[in-house]
Amino acid sequence: MATFSEINYAGLARQVMERCEELGNISQSDAYLDRRYLTAEHKKANQNVESWLKSAGMKTWQDEAGNLWGRYENRNPNAERFILGSHLDTVPNGGKYDGMLGVIAPLTLIEMYNQCGVEFPFHLDIVGFGDEEGTRFSSTLLGSRALTGQWQDEWANVEDDNGTNLRQALQDFGLDFDLVSNAEIDTDGLMGYLELHIEQGPVLEDHDLPIGIVSAIAGAKRFDFTVKGMAGHAGTVPMPLRQDALSATSEMILAIERIATEHDIVATVGRISNKPNGVNVISGLTEFSLDIRSASDEQRDIALSDIFLSLGTIASQRNVALSSRQTHSASAVHCDEKLQAILKHAIEDADYTPFTLLSGAGHDAMAIADICPVAMLFMRCDKGISHHPAEAIMESDVEVTLEVLDRALRKIGK
Amino acid sequence: MATFSEINYAGLARQVMERCEELGNISQSDAYLDRRYLTAEHKKANQNVESWLKSAGMKTWQDEAGNLWGRYENRNPNAERFILGSHLDTVPNGGKYDGMLGVIAPLTLIEMYNQCGVEFPFHLDIVGFGDEEGTRFSSTLLGSRALTGQWQDEWANVEDDNGTNLRQALQDFGLDFDLVSNAEIDTDGLMGYLELHIEQGPVLEDHDLPIGIVSAIAGAKRFDFTVKGMAGHAGTVPMPLRQDALSATSEMILAIERIATEHDIVATVGRISNKPNGVNVISGLTEFSLDIRSASDEQRDIALSDIFLSLGTIASQRNVALSSRQTHSASAVHCDEKLQAILKHAIEDADYTPFTLLSGAGHDAMAIADICPVAMLFMRCDKGISHHPAEAIMESDVEVTLEVLDRALRKIGK
Repeated sequence: MATFSEINYAGLARQVMERCEELGNISQSDAYLDRRYLTAEHKKANQNVESWLKSAGMKTWQDEAGNLWGRYENRNPNAERFILGSHLDTVPNGGKYDGMLGVIAPLTLIEMYNQCGVEFPFHLDIVGFGDEEGTRFSSTLLGSRALTGQWQDEWANVEDDNGTNLRQALQDFGLDFDLVSNAEIDTDGLMGYLELHIEQGPVLEDHDLPIGIVSAIAGAKRFDFTVKGMAGHAGTVPMPLRQDALSATSEMILAIERIATEHDIVATVGRISNKPNGVNVISGLTEFSLDIRSASDEQRDIALSDIFLSLGTIASQRNVALSSRQTHSASAVHCDEKLQAILKHAIEDADYTPFTLLSGAGHDAMAIADICPVAMLFMRCDKGISHHPAEAIMESDVEVTLEVLDRALRKIGK
Repeated sequence: MATFSEINYAGLARQVMERCEELGNISQSDAYLDRRYLTAEHKKANQNVESWLKSAGMKTWQDEAGNLWGRYENRNPNAERFILGSHLDTVPNGGKYDGMLGVIAPLTLIEMYNQCGVEFPFHLDIVGFGDEEGTRFSSTLLGSRALTGQWQDEWANVEDDNGTNLRQALQDFGLDFDLVSNAEIDTDGLMGYLELHIEQGPVLEDHDLPIGIVSAIAGAKRFDFTVKGMAGHAGTVPMPLRQDALSATSEMILAIERIATEHDIVATVGRISNKPNGVNVISGLTEFSLDIRSASDEQRDIALSDIFLSLGTIASQRNVALSSRQTHSASAVHCDEKLQAILKHAIEDADYTPFTLLSGAGHDAMAIADICPVAMLFMRCDKGISHHPAEAIMESDVEVTLEVLDRALRKIGK
């Protein structure tokens, strides 16, 4: 068996980059990368990845939800299993590493294992989920939730932009909605799940580090707020007599920003709409969204109470009416301590500084956490940009990541 | 001649309300009031008003720009002239008093003069301008500017939403673009112009007064600002690493509001657009408008300097790029002191408190100020609402206004 110093991680990294490039060309749009769940391009991506899984000496299959699997088999068919993976779908106008890296890097490593005859005391599985982004059916994590028995019957009728429902889309793909429950996996002998993913944020870059260990996936809540003021002529209403909805909203946005910073969490007003939105008309009605996240649900909710208090005060002082509606709520998911420790030692052994960070974005690991211990390894991406064609990674970071992943996998189950 | 106490202003007020109602039914839309320049409805409104001008014993004509005129003639054809008036066009989904009141109230008063045999030592003219709002050809005050020789040759090709240009629209109305210059009026013997208009703001209502004297029509400047930050994932970018364009814009909007209040002028951010405007995406680009007005151009420009300084500082502190573009500039117009004094005495004589206010909105008087002394009388409107079907006035306020107008007119030229 090759020692770590003998392994050509640089060569493997180059292959990972090439495979990401190749997969990034499979798109339902000519103008940009767009690959959604259960499309012809999903099928084509599965076929490409399946061929690489086979090259890596893995047994392959597709489950009833369209997720692609590969197994680097232990001789004992009843051995435990450990799963590596991420998703193969993209957002419209997305990048070619978000998701795919977490499938391609592991399989490229296993190809090396296969060539070198490295064996594991468990089945080493790779999964490429068909849907994480939720772009096609406005519901995220469909792929990983099929594994955990979280599919809902009513999803059969959820439609995409073209009016095709999920049942029909599965059928067109060669699958059967009524059989998706068979994709659920047995938790007996299921050791854990490790997901490699680009960070999609600037923290690693800011710390000048190629990789980081995820401590938790933030729990998020979302709200829509409506601020009702009084529209008026920009020239005729003196400042003190105004009930300007946009000014009130501006004060609220700054309050949200200040409170989030004080509580060391993230809160974002990403969407705003304003009426009548005329250059010479005082704003009468403004709507805005709030997305608030934290590794600690409790900390998030304490900050949220502060935000609501502050927004209520602003509305009252400015004589505008404020109403809100919660649109989303998810609890934080904590990564497994043992798996985090394994990643920490692997990073140290590779002569890098272990660094732990929060995942503000949701990932397949969130769903899988329902059935087994999960861990995530984040890799630095350029300027934290993601969900954009400018999404970029460095081949040298992939090299480091492969070594760390290799070292970690060899410690699992020991 | 009837003494003021004998005149039935209440009866005249009722007639004014009825005529506004009647004129408010002439609309190019079935759903709401919409009457634009040189339309069939403009023609119909001119016909209706012309019949009332005739009932008032006035000589009538339509000028080369489609403005409707009535003259309560002095016996001497070479007598001086004094003009009362406002506009007959509306914005889409507008109200029935903005403009029309300033034509209908004077003509209803003159009808009484005619019946009672009241004479004036000058021609008393009423003009109903065809275009003040500028809705059809995106250029305001076309009607009044035709009187002052401010029409531009290049306007011939300005098009409405249907691609009809101004030359064609005039021709369809029975007019000729090349003859519009004949609408220009002789300034010899032109004594002045008095415009009655609803306030379109809440100041009179706030002071519990039916009427007010306009001191000046504010000069306005308009700008478009662009704030360029860095879009990012709402969950993955810590607060201190963000370059949130919407947060920066919020701070700018509050700075504008604060500076305007400090300088006792009005400044409005009425329009905002945000990109990518997703619930889970940090804002990367925000655009917003600024409309800033004051009776004093100097005071406005001093405030504007403060605003630019403040916005530049905010942009710098938040590490976002700010750019601006001026889109409009108009100087303030001051109302004639003598005519203001006449209105003041008329209000006192009618036992009301004279109150002077600024017109933040533009009016036909702005254009007419190029050729003669102008004055404006503002009447209270409900909650200051205008450019909206909810535009409303009280008949009792019309009664007061008619008396004040009557008393003022009898003092002009004396």
